[in-house]
Amino acid sequence: MRILYHHPLSPLSRLARVALAEKGLPFEAVIEKPWERREEFLALTPAAEVPVLVEDDGTVIADGFALLEYLEEAYPGQPLMPPEVAGRAEVRRLVQWFTRKFDREVTENLVGEKLVKRVSGQGQPFAPAIRAGLANIHYHLDYIAYLAERRTWLAGSFFSLADLAAAAELSCVDYLGDVPWDENEEAKDWYSRLKCRPSFRALLADAIPGCPPPRHYADLDF
Amino acid sequence: MRILYHHPLSPLSRLARVALAEKGLPFEAVIEKPWERREEFLALTPAAEVPVLVEDDGTVIADGFALLEYLEEAYPGQPLMPPEVAGRAEVRRLVQWFTRKFDREVTENLVGEKLVKRVSGQGQPFAPAIRAGLANIHYHLDYIAYLAERRTWLAGSFFSLADLAAAAELSCVDYLGDVPWDENEEAKDWYSRLKCRPSFRALLADAIPGCPPPRHYADLDF
Repeated sequence: MRILYHHPLSPLSRLARVALAEKGLPFEAVIEKPWERREEFLALTPAAEVPVLVEDDGTVIADGFALLEYLEEAYPGQPLMPPEVAGRAEVRRLVQWFTRKFDREVTENLVGEKLVKRVSGQGQPFAPAIRAGLANIHYHLDYIAYLAERRTWLAGSFFSLADLAAAAELSCVDYLGDVPWDENEEAKDWYSRLKCRPSFRALLADAIPGCPPPRHYADLDF
Repeated sequence: MRILYHHPLSPLSRLARVALAEKGLPFEAVIEKPWERREEFLALTPAAEVPVLVEDDGTVIADGFALLEYLEEAYPGQPLMPPEVAGRAEVRRLVQWFTRKFDREVTENLVGEKLVKRVSGQGQPFAPAIRAGLANIHYHLDYIAYLAERRTWLAGSFFSLADLAAAAELSCVDYLGDVPWDENEEAKDWYSRLKCRPSFRALLADAIPGCPPPRHYADLDF
């Protein structure tokens, strides 16, 4: 069985898990704490980052972005990008938008400060960062709503990695209860469509020892 | 003529320029100062990041990573990734390694502090960051040498985006004269092979007004 080394608080890990599930590819999910810099893990990836995929034949796919592209190329069934090149570019632009810009401006400031620091023992939450994250999330929800109002899915008519990337980031923040869903109906409607997908079940069952999620986190009617 | 909005101090812009040149795709290079947040530029890319490509038919390709994948898909002649999926994953892993990890640990600390802050008027260089960059570059040159000793090119036997990504980052740092080439023969030999390629000519002719590069920057026998 292929193995995915991941961490529930890593948005790129969540993205890899839902992408594998959307493609119907079975995998064993192994939690890795990258901050422990385990020697066997470093041998798989010198960057020491989750996710890392190890295929049955021993092929190692390290780096979250390389992993997404690999899945599209190696398992073209259930594609998560449209066929036309400009549409694929729009998917990739949005994947980068969410996994880098949203991540830096929102997720790192909230999940990084409040949860990752706690579970990894890397210091105290930095209050100004948390305030910045709580301010920035409004602009990002507005952008999601802007896209969702104009398109069936975030990158266009095709359900894609752009939707999964946005939902992977948001689901981490939602684990804290820090997404102001009631302020933004369009974004909430779009997210509820994602949350209902079978590929999301495993994410909604995540539970960090000692830090349970709020009740609405796994609720499909939130 | 297609237009590339770029900046000479942006490694992803340099990477886009050499990738276009390697593929033999003519383009008009237009310098954009993303910190000015020019309205017409924001209309092309809400992330306000260079590079952005505008094709003859008006198609806009924003985001550096989306741009590289787009070029491979839209112009498969002169491929910059090998055909097999695992080999392509290794190229993408290394592109991410250089454009994110090397960039954060070396380029931002040196080029960001010494040059970008100066030309963009965004404050004074932060000395501890510069010291970190000067320390980190040794480890990164060692990793390049490790790869170059074992492989024809950084990702394997195929000349690829991995080589271009590493060279794009290094060429920014070399503009400052901050690459200790004499400490690392393997890395220097590999870079001299890159520097000789016609695709690099435009990069080696770059000159920031008021901040000329050291003499060896454009010297093929450095």
